Amino acid sequence: MYAKEYVADRFRELQDDICRQLEQADGAGKFREDEWLRPEGGGGRSRVIEGAVIEKGGVMFSAVHGPLPEKIALSMQLPPTDFFATGVSIVLHPHSPMAPIIHMNVRYFETGAGRWWFGGGIDLTPHYVIPDDARYFHKQLKEVCDRFDPGFYSAFKTQADDYFYLRHRQETRGVGGIFFDYLDERSGHSQEELFAFANAVGRAFAPTYVELLRRSVDRPWSDREKRWQMLRRGRYVEFNLVWDRGTKFGLETNGRVESILMSMPPEAQWVYNFTPEPESPEAQTLAWLRKDVSWV
Amino acid sequence: MYAKEYVADRFRELQDDICRQLEQADGAGKFREDEWLRPEGGGGRSRVIEGAVIEKGGVMFSAVHGPLPEKIALSMQLPPTDFFATGVSIVLHPHSPMAPIIHMNVRYFETGAGRWWFGGGIDLTPHYVIPDDARYFHKQLKEVCDRFDPGFYSAFKTQADDYFYLRHRQETRGVGGIFFDYLDERSGHSQEELFAFANAVGRAFAPTYVELLRRSVDRPWSDREKRWQMLRRGRYVEFNLVWDRGTKFGLETNGRVESILMSMPPEAQWVYNFTPEPESPEAQTLAWLRKDVSWV
Repeated sequence: MYAKEYVADRFRELQDDICRQLEQADGAGKFREDEWLRPEGGGGRSRVIEGAVIEKGGVMFSAVHGPLPEKIALSMQLPPTDFFATGVSIVLHPHSPMAPIIHMNVRYFETGAGRWWFGGGIDLTPHYVIPDDARYFHKQLKEVCDRFDPGFYSAFKTQADDYFYLRHRQETRGVGGIFFDYLDERSGHSQEELFAFANAVGRAFAPTYVELLRRSVDRPWSDREKRWQMLRRGRYVEFNLVWDRGTKFGLETNGRVESILMSMPPEAQWVYNFTPEPESPEAQTLAWLRKDVSWV
Repeated sequence: MYAKEYVADRFRELQDDICRQLEQADGAGKFREDEWLRPEGGGGRSRVIEGAVIEKGGVMFSAVHGPLPEKIALSMQLPPTDFFATGVSIVLHPHSPMAPIIHMNVRYFETGAGRWWFGGGIDLTPHYVIPDDARYFHKQLKEVCDRFDPGFYSAFKTQADDYFYLRHRQETRGVGGIFFDYLDERSGHSQEELFAFANAVGRAFAPTYVELLRRSVDRPWSDREKRWQMLRRGRYVEFNLVWDRGTKFGLETNGRVESILMSMPPEAQWVYNFTPEPESPEAQTLAWLRKDVSWV
């Protein structure tokens, strides 16, 4: 069993490694870092980039501890207890509407009562769904999952479809990915194995996204695609503020607002009742934004 | 006691009257209308304007009925019952960063169990707080309130400060206004009197906002003010999607999404950790965004 400090140290290294790869891929932008302390215990390292390829992106590390907020204790049916949580959380908004938004999170949680678990996931939100990119993305995730458990990909892909879903729009946020939570020894895996899995998910993130950015470079776009990107970013805002449990939890428990809301796009638009023309690329994208598409 | 159809008819007229005054003030924009039906009963008339002065605005009327959604029944500690709800709801986003965003809502609610009540309010969200405008705005509201009950303004002003509050930012949404809910005979007023009050609030809306627009016409602005407006609109999005009970309720109960989200600004921006320079007009505005400012 790894000590929680060990897990936190590896996640901190993961943040370093991802930032290095993203700066290299961007070519121009550099991450700015803010270190912050949480009054109740622990803190984090927030890193934000405004680059040539990545318009706005955050790669956040945190390791916090203290009494478990009552609201979570209740929702988890736990008695009052201390907790420890560490993780890396990422959202990247590219300049090009032909490149996808991406999100990744890996986290480890321990309570004073001796319970521990991992959670996290990666999901992809293309402004325009390009099936070949979606297949490539899911293939990378499946390969990571299959190295640890033949059941992981299918289970976590389904959970991502359910989680990254805008119920009020009846749309998925994008082409999904994987999502897992409360992953503990009941999975048949030890803490060490599950840490290796979470870490492998984290390590797969940068090369996968860098490849997707590379593919997008040659795709031309004009005002039309930019306008559509702004509307899709509006949907991203709606998901994060209305449905995302992590965001809601953070805002309701006095988390560091600027770190939580680093997921917001640099700019978003809302147009009343916008409906794309039938058969247009925008309408085709909407048709892909549903659950249970099999990408691999 | 007025029949519920009577109240709905007067609110429909209120929508007409407000749209007429706003078109006149805008000078160029005309409202587009969508009529919609609610599968469970009732429907509405959504009207949206994109004008020369008002960049994006919605003036919505609805009168809906059917079984009370379980979620509300529970929150109101009511047994399963039918309900009827009618109201007018408005959000206007002006082009000029020197003019304020405004919101108004009046609504009437009846349950099968014979309960009824009024709710609503008006609140003002200047991108730049101009104390003289805030005082004018509150003075208009106080005059309306005072015509009906000497206790209304003070009570409803406090409720607006508490309601239009971004807890995660520790900021009010703007300079407040009035907010009231569950207003019934326990207030010491009959249904007819409270309808007259709600109607008077609705009737005060257009002339008050038109005067505020008139005052803003001569105020110059540049890119700097426009950028600040985009950030303040981001805050407006945060309030509506994270904290506004009406929005959350609508989205969670399959309301008409485009009518609910007509409150979204046409465009908004998020800049990580933006902090205005000390003593700047932007910093001065932030200093006003707190509860318990006495404007009259």
